[in-house]
Amino acid sequence: MNTDELYMAEAISLAKQAAEMDEVPVGAVIVRDGEIIARAYNTREGTRCATHHAELLAIEEACRVLGGWRLIGATLYVTMEPCAMCAGAIVNARIPRVVYGTRDLRFGAYGSLFDLTKIPLNHVPEVKGGVLEEQTRALLSDYFKEKRKRNKEQKAL
Amino acid sequence: MNTDELYMAEAISLAKQAAEMDEVPVGAVIVRDGEIIARAYNTREGTRCATHHAELLAIEEACRVLGGWRLIGATLYVTMEPCAMCAGAIVNARIPRVVYGTRDLRFGAYGSLFDLTKIPLNHVPEVKGGVLEEQTRALLSDYFKEKRKRNKEQKAL
Repeated sequence: MNTDELYMAEAISLAKQAAEMDEVPVGAVIVRDGEIIARAYNTREGTRCATHHAELLAIEEACRVLGGWRLIGATLYVTMEPCAMCAGAIVNARIPRVVYGTRDLRFGAYGSLFDLTKIPLNHVPEVKGGVLEEQTRALLSDYFKEKRKRNKEQKAL
Repeated sequence: MNTDELYMAEAISLAKQAAEMDEVPVGAVIVRDGEIIARAYNTREGTRCATHHAELLAIEEACRVLGGWRLIGATLYVTMEPCAMCAGAIVNARIPRVVYGTRDLRFGAYGSLFDLTKIPLNHVPEVKGGVLEEQTRALLSDYFKEKRKRNKEQKAL
């Protein structure tokens, strides 16, 4: 595994924790100077909060750790392409580099639904997608397959 | 004053609290069934957090108050046009109606920089801008004028 894949593997293990809590499995880590400074996973259902996506929670944790809102020199790794909210938060936090796993055709803000990096903002991160693509896509498809199966079983009772 | 102006006046008074704490003065309220369920203002400098815009904090408060992430039937009032992050959060929280004051030519995601309502998302709010336009614009121009004056005085010392 190369460095990007190693950090993505860490994001995948966080996504698996989300799945165990019946959350859509998305995990994120933020790395600076070769060190993971923030880890988070999606908790939208558990915390009943619309903003609690993995990336947003990781950015908030990284701001706390670094004691400031500019995450200069940081790379954000996330298992799924960020949505508009999270891509906007990445701009607001001035994160210079984003690495994601699988694309999100419905909500992805880095080319799938629209591309925030093509809009003339004051900060545009470098974005790399498709890292550990198969594993990150399987995370989601396995989760939804399992969920459909459970729903079907419940209806049959 | 009509109803939208009354709630915008409340958002303005919150923005003034932000200015007193040397934050960029933006205030937001969320209204549901004729009642203000969340109030917030920008605290990015004080809390040193990139995501602490008025709208995001108000959405998080409204989720806590209502005990769920879908803010159905809510209207968000904010003194300045939302950025990409906040417009994305409005989608994620399924807020049906947004009313803002002055435009944000640099970051505004409802027509100034780009228009998130033109992107085929699963949820598109109704958006109305320009409510109490003069007062909401003056909030910001007064704040930045004062800040420039203070910076100049400090440099002269």
